[in-house]
Amino acid sequence: MGQKPITFIRQVVACVSDPTLLECDLYPSDVKERAKGILAACAGQSVGAYTMSHGIELIRRHVAEYIEQRDGHKANWQDICLSGGASGGIKNCLQLLCNHKIDGKDTAVLIPIPQYPLYSASLAEYGLEQVGYYLDEDHNWALDINELERAFTDGSKTHAVRAIVVINPGNPTGQVLTRSNIEDIIKFAQKHSLFVFADEVYQDNVYDKDSKFYSFKKVMTEMGAPYNKVELASFMSISKGYVGECGLRGAWMELCNLDPEVQAHLYKAISAMLCSTTLGQTAVDCVVKPPKPGEPSYELWHKEKTAILDSLKKRAQMIATFNTMDGFSCNVVQGAMYAFPRIQLSPKAIEAAAAAKKLPDVFYAFKLLEETGICVVPGSGFGQRPGTYHFRTTILPQPQQLQDMLDVFRGFHQKFTKEYS
Amino acid sequence: MGQKPITFIRQVVACVSDPTLLECDLYPSDVKERAKGILAACAGQSVGAYTMSHGIELIRRHVAEYIEQRDGHKANWQDICLSGGASGGIKNCLQLLCNHKIDGKDTAVLIPIPQYPLYSASLAEYGLEQVGYYLDEDHNWALDINELERAFTDGSKTHAVRAIVVINPGNPTGQVLTRSNIEDIIKFAQKHSLFVFADEVYQDNVYDKDSKFYSFKKVMTEMGAPYNKVELASFMSISKGYVGECGLRGAWMELCNLDPEVQAHLYKAISAMLCSTTLGQTAVDCVVKPPKPGEPSYELWHKEKTAILDSLKKRAQMIATFNTMDGFSCNVVQGAMYAFPRIQLSPKAIEAAAAAKKLPDVFYAFKLLEETGICVVPGSGFGQRPGTYHFRTTILPQPQQLQDMLDVFRGFHQKFTKEYS
Repeated sequence: MGQKPITFIRQVVACVSDPTLLECDLYPSDVKERAKGILAACAGQSVGAYTMSHGIELIRRHVAEYIEQRDGHKANWQDICLSGGASGGIKNCLQLLCNHKIDGKDTAVLIPIPQYPLYSASLAEYGLEQVGYYLDEDHNWALDINELERAFTDGSKTHAVRAIVVINPGNPTGQVLTRSNIEDIIKFAQKHSLFVFADEVYQDNVYDKDSKFYSFKKVMTEMGAPYNKVELASFMSISKGYVGECGLRGAWMELCNLDPEVQAHLYKAISAMLCSTTLGQTAVDCVVKPPKPGEPSYELWHKEKTAILDSLKKRAQMIATFNTMDGFSCNVVQGAMYAFPRIQLSPKAIEAAAAAKKLPDVFYAFKLLEETGICVVPGSGFGQRPGTYHFRTTILPQPQQLQDMLDVFRGFHQKFTKEYS
Repeated sequence: MGQKPITFIRQVVACVSDPTLLECDLYPSDVKERAKGILAACAGQSVGAYTMSHGIELIRRHVAEYIEQRDGHKANWQDICLSGGASGGIKNCLQLLCNHKIDGKDTAVLIPIPQYPLYSASLAEYGLEQVGYYLDEDHNWALDINELERAFTDGSKTHAVRAIVVINPGNPTGQVLTRSNIEDIIKFAQKHSLFVFADEVYQDNVYDKDSKFYSFKKVMTEMGAPYNKVELASFMSISKGYVGECGLRGAWMELCNLDPEVQAHLYKAISAMLCSTTLGQTAVDCVVKPPKPGEPSYELWHKEKTAILDSLKKRAQMIATFNTMDGFSCNVVQGAMYAFPRIQLSPKAIEAAAAAKKLPDVFYAFKLLEETGICVVPGSGFGQRPGTYHFRTTILPQPQQLQDMLDVFRGFHQKFTKEYS
């Protein structure tokens, strides 16, 4: 999407890949020091060796330090597990819940609607039941505790509901949960003994001036007993944030309050896959321990990071344009990288979709793609309240391209509305 | 284990990580050309972008060309799927078999005994039944068709046996299957409509002058109908061979004769994990398309490759030392990286093990570890015929270290034998 990589990360990855670069004058001294430290922590001082399945100890320790600075609370490095992308960690944790009945009931997991499809796909793969709770579009996609209770009660009729997935900042919905909303969710989870999956991969992507990211770990810890004993797995990735290194495959999860035997089982189960990529782990190290003021790479790193986050913020604001289009409503993109605008579709459009054997939002998205080349994902791919229509779009294109897209989109929508009015 | 990385691979990985290296005079021109080609095949010309879930098209095409050169038969690049390690590909394919009953029977998979524990672990994870067939230790761990038929018949009493795993060259057993043995296995698979998992990750590791690696794909193709229609997945990795880049996480599988809808389902299922690491994929490209004679990197690449394979061959021969120890017998290490020697344990040793609440081979391995620091894996971890005892050791340590290990081992074994005689 035209976003330039962070120089520091790429230089460190290059150095550990080819340690002869440590002998040249190409790179700043802090890049070389970082690379040397990582190599020293690898078996045989080489990124070619397998690491422990949960990752290189040094990097797990750096992740724990990062979390401590973020939250102001202790993090145990032994509870940090690196993975090649957050998806892998999420799947490994979901798998803990499978093949087990409680009082003859199969296991179910609460997931938001709309949701990121990794969850529905993985639940299906593991034979787990999906119980959806609707996010509250009228309150900027917050979690409504009454709706959580409704979903839990419904799901419990046939299944043992044992976990809840929360995506904050939201994908595809772009909301940032308030602290009090998180507190309510934790109370709800504690009341029903639910394992909390906190998908917090967009924690660095908060644009709205009135919003702030609070980790579930921080809020839970500060709520004290009994809430600080809720079972939690929090996920973070280098594919998002200001980093966007999707292809390098680096991520981690922090496990809190798991039974030590369960955690040992999880660590044993992942060992069949040997380890995640050393170069992805290296990039994780650079993200959790970036250059400090005064170090040679600091200025450039700071400039690159700020430019990317400022631009994303600007683009998040540009998306408000949708609200100026007839029949559109779009919540503020407080965080993450997406907008999930709602569209009104006329009875005639819905009829035309049925004739084309497509869902109305899919019909709209295909028309948009075919007539303009703009690709959005229909809301039905994420789930939405019956009778409502949405699509997901992203703020990832660079500003001019995003503006061009919005202009073309407006023209298309006017034409579509006229055609099906 | 002291093995030096192949320079060409590391230089290309460094270049794609930091493309400013393309502007310097550090690297040979073929390294830069390779890196440019890979970057051009990445979205946005960056290794930071996600790739298709089955990998970068250019690299899948290069893998297909490599297979064509190896086998002398057509390979379709669309049937090549890259993964972050062979383990991931193997698990994804095994998963195709789960959650499905035939005539009310759950699914079972034939696996060798001894076997690499990834298979038993993954089968357990997916709720698939493991049906073991014993490798024929008296014939250098070949597959005995009578034993395969016995296992199939036994397994079929309670389960639908739908696949067979073959590891060639063998892990932990170090054998290289003869062509006629492979033909017999294919006939057996065809007769019973079995999906063949050909774990061929050690295909470059053949040391015995009378042995040669034949891929299942090649043999099957040359057998003609109906054998060339057997469903097959063949797995290969950059963690083995002369490359040993375990930490970079690169691998591929070739799928043959799968129903197109099943293959489409497999490709859809893996998309939840997004993609394997671009830098691991880059290393795969270097392995399947190494420098050619006349290119600037060729001489060094050839020298490094030859030195590693020559040394592994020497070490494979050194392992024969076990046969000079009382109570030991060890088959020729024809290929792969392991030996699986058999040891005679005296009744007194077996009693002592029982008193220590350990299996006899585990008892022996712990004694060895505690008294010498040498770590071997007890045969019971891989499976062995009841009443026989083995352990797996590896030829990976450098020659002098391997010799030292063998000397210390001999001293330990003499002492152990005396103590428990």
